[in-house]
Amino acid sequence: MHRPESDGRTVKPVTITIDAMSGDRGAAVVVAASLRAVRENEALSIVLVGIRSELEALLREGHARIRIVEAADVVRMNERPSHALRHKKNSSMAIALSLVRDGEAQGCVSAGNTGALMAFGRTIIRMYPGIERPAIAKLIPSLRGRCHVLDLGANVDSTAENLYQYALMGSLMASAICSQAEPRVALLNVGEEEIKGNEQVRLASHMLAQCDTINYIGYVEGSDLFRDVADVVVCDGFVGNIALKTGEGVAGLLIELMEQAFTRNLYGRLVGLLARPIIGRLLQLMDPSRHNGASLLGLQGVVIKSHGNANERAMLSAIRQAVREVELEVPRRINERLDDLML
Amino acid sequence: MHRPESDGRTVKPVTITIDAMSGDRGAAVVVAASLRAVRENEALSIVLVGIRSELEALLREGHARIRIVEAADVVRMNERPSHALRHKKNSSMAIALSLVRDGEAQGCVSAGNTGALMAFGRTIIRMYPGIERPAIAKLIPSLRGRCHVLDLGANVDSTAENLYQYALMGSLMASAICSQAEPRVALLNVGEEEIKGNEQVRLASHMLAQCDTINYIGYVEGSDLFRDVADVVVCDGFVGNIALKTGEGVAGLLIELMEQAFTRNLYGRLVGLLARPIIGRLLQLMDPSRHNGASLLGLQGVVIKSHGNANERAMLSAIRQAVREVELEVPRRINERLDDLML
Repeated sequence: MHRPESDGRTVKPVTITIDAMSGDRGAAVVVAASLRAVRENEALSIVLVGIRSELEALLREGHARIRIVEAADVVRMNERPSHALRHKKNSSMAIALSLVRDGEAQGCVSAGNTGALMAFGRTIIRMYPGIERPAIAKLIPSLRGRCHVLDLGANVDSTAENLYQYALMGSLMASAICSQAEPRVALLNVGEEEIKGNEQVRLASHMLAQCDTINYIGYVEGSDLFRDVADVVVCDGFVGNIALKTGEGVAGLLIELMEQAFTRNLYGRLVGLLARPIIGRLLQLMDPSRHNGASLLGLQGVVIKSHGNANERAMLSAIRQAVREVELEVPRRINERLDDLML
Repeated sequence: MHRPESDGRTVKPVTITIDAMSGDRGAAVVVAASLRAVRENEALSIVLVGIRSELEALLREGHARIRIVEAADVVRMNERPSHALRHKKNSSMAIALSLVRDGEAQGCVSAGNTGALMAFGRTIIRMYPGIERPAIAKLIPSLRGRCHVLDLGANVDSTAENLYQYALMGSLMASAICSQAEPRVALLNVGEEEIKGNEQVRLASHMLAQCDTINYIGYVEGSDLFRDVADVVVCDGFVGNIALKTGEGVAGLLIELMEQAFTRNLYGRLVGLLARPIIGRLLQLMDPSRHNGASLLGLQGVVIKSHGNANERAMLSAIRQAVREVELEVPRRINERLDDLML
């Protein structure tokens, strides 16, 4: 499940702060997910950041482990990050991140403007020394294993050096989260042959091949993401974002077609009822709300980006992921080992 | 079906030449698909290019509308295009393309090395005047309509000008193939907002917005590819190739999971039998062999790139697509209108 406390060790209390105002669906989804999260996890406290009156109305009788911190402003979804950085210091997003910096929470979740979250993240929570840009990383499901993919949209013009740094961070993250000793790290490319790809990817491959501390396995293609070929797949954010959304698009198309087939007529509905139990795992795997939450990797703190239009279940997934990364002390573990790798 | 002859007009004879040696699966697949193609289409003749003795053995008694042209050499899958261009003038690929240039065939199909096919295509068959680089275009299926996507891997560092030219060619192709008067043309990006994307995409968007003759609708995201939002989606080849393969990867994963569910035990097998008729369309849509064949757009002739590991059915799809583009006179129709658009 979401908490590895079953081995009998004492569960440390965790506090997560949530930017409650920035998502497409408003604060109601965040409040409902927060209530579910604290109910299922007794070690969890949540700080909701946003307009107090609105949040109090949604919370009704409230909860002992949920408190509210007022924030007057909201970063809009289509706002330029530079504009947000200058004019939205009192936004729910900025204040939620400040609470992590100030030690009042160990992790932050936001469904808001990705660019602004990156920009505020870099200025409010510090980055690992030597890392040029944070990257967005996500654990995507596959047939057997799972695969960390980064960058998924933080940076649209990654240099070879950037790609190299994503690979370092991704490898350490996979070690920390999946307890893999030597995660297989690959670069996403248009073919497996050495001659394929653009300049940046070929140069990054050269750099990774010379790095002893990383288990670099070479190039993989888009179709390899789901074949348990690599544990960490590295790419530029423009490419990664489009690949991820295309994959989600295919999954969405197939769910819709299946729903159609299983509701078209009486026979379809009957077969659908019979099939539901055995294709349950498949439907789960395709359900984006179960995989919501991407990590802003490179910051010295846990920051989880939720889908802008996350529903309650999806927001709950993002909160669980923040808790998990805090419990596993992902930032500390990356920071400790990154120093050696950067030399 | 694959031939629009049902309107009563006379069907013109079509000759397609096939690079029979370059695919991963060898000539047997090509020969079997060719036999099926000429049997289902009485107007079709095929020229197989490759090692005569091998092809003759595979053809056995032969067929009146299939002939063989000898080619001593084969371009290897991982060969550098520049190397092939210099040393493989007598390859099945180069000779197959020459037959189109010389008017002995109207279209060519190859499952070989994409880079070499592009390079030979540019030197043997001429490009449209003013077009800088050919692009690989494919019609991908979606819920309702279908969508032409380009470039899918011909060029890995497209400039704004390149993207603009792909948009022009894609728009004309959609008009020619799908009889759409004003195809909706979009740029693939990491968000729909104006501020998103990299330099090249933003500049291309600016250029397209000022072009009166194209129905440019702005940015779309990866998930929009399957939602009938646009008829033509334009992107750099690195991005397009990875997006397409990621989508295929998801579809493949889902097919495998469904197969597992429907074979796991007696109940699964029973439900699978009952479900097969109603999820047939879904399985068809996910079957890559039914969508094999991408167009090399920008050349003054029909050249279809097949998947390297195409099976017989997939190769047949690619041949049908070549026939279709010849019958619809796609290169002539693009050429005629491109002149006006380039001004």
